[in-house]
Amino acid sequence: MTTSDFGIREGEKAVELPARTDAGLYFIGRIHTPWKDRKDCPKNARESEAVCIVDVDPRWREALKDVETCSHIVLLYWMDRSPRNLVLQVPAHHGVQRGTFALRSPARPNPVAMSVVKLLRVDGNRLSVVGLDCLDGTRLLDIKPYFASTDSVPEAIVGWHERKEE
Amino acid sequence: MTTSDFGIREGEKAVELPARTDAGLYFIGRIHTPWKDRKDCPKNARESEAVCIVDVDPRWREALKDVETCSHIVLLYWMDRSPRNLVLQVPAHHGVQRGTFALRSPARPNPVAMSVVKLLRVDGNRLSVVGLDCLDGTRLLDIKPYFASTDSVPEAIVGWHERKEE
Repeated sequence: MTTSDFGIREGEKAVELPARTDAGLYFIGRIHTPWKDRKDCPKNARESEAVCIVDVDPRWREALKDVETCSHIVLLYWMDRSPRNLVLQVPAHHGVQRGTFALRSPARPNPVAMSVVKLLRVDGNRLSVVGLDCLDGTRLLDIKPYFASTDSVPEAIVGWHERKEE
Repeated sequence: MTTSDFGIREGEKAVELPARTDAGLYFIGRIHTPWKDRKDCPKNARESEAVCIVDVDPRWREALKDVETCSHIVLLYWMDRSPRNLVLQVPAHHGVQRGTFALRSPARPNPVAMSVVKLLRVDGNRLSVVGLDCLDGTRLLDIKPYFASTDSVPEAIVGWHERKEE
């Protein structure tokens, strides 16, 4: 978990991390995907129709009750190979300096990734989903029902990204 | 952080938590809302048009670069008053037993809440947003740009919730 996994590119900036963390997370399962190496991961989760498997630890199995009624769920998971001290980053595929909080990069103070996925089925403590782009073996943190009423904003715009595509 | 903050209702079930946590989080700021007590919080974030303030710690200020180009952002924050050991819950306003992962209840193994909010403006390290329902003083974990292309699913359905409303 050092910046050397990434290296700091020209235009990037790191800050000193706090001396200690403030709260603790439990890993509650593991995500299985076809991608064993960062370079193989889809750049965008909508690029891939690969079915991925989410194995929830048996301890939490009963917490999956009623999840099968959801067409889509939110997964939170831990991007443990990322540096946590970058405030400015230059994503390789963009080449422009951006603030960490304007990016979905795994490099962020708390590397908790969020993905909205389509739920295909639930078998015991195993979920089959479509819409992930993370590495095989990624540790799961949470599963939430996706409510269109609060979570869906079709008209939302990320200005810097729109301009890039013009 | 015990279940006695909530009490366990009939139909609820707790499990033993792991002996230790697996990863650590940094609090990166604080959220200011009009709600000082759990009972005053809106039941649903879309119920309230209240403008809430997100103060990001100065350490992370530069990471806000370009965030002002986003119409909507995702906030992750820490619900530290919740029990973490419930697998089955009976929400007071529903009265029906559900699995923890089928609910957005703050009671979950990792009480990381996720809200999609409308960004009104960024002034230095302070954000003004609409769409929160959390307590005043809640600790911030992350800010992410909201991409409609991957995060918006207008047709998503939470089956148990639809049936309740029929």
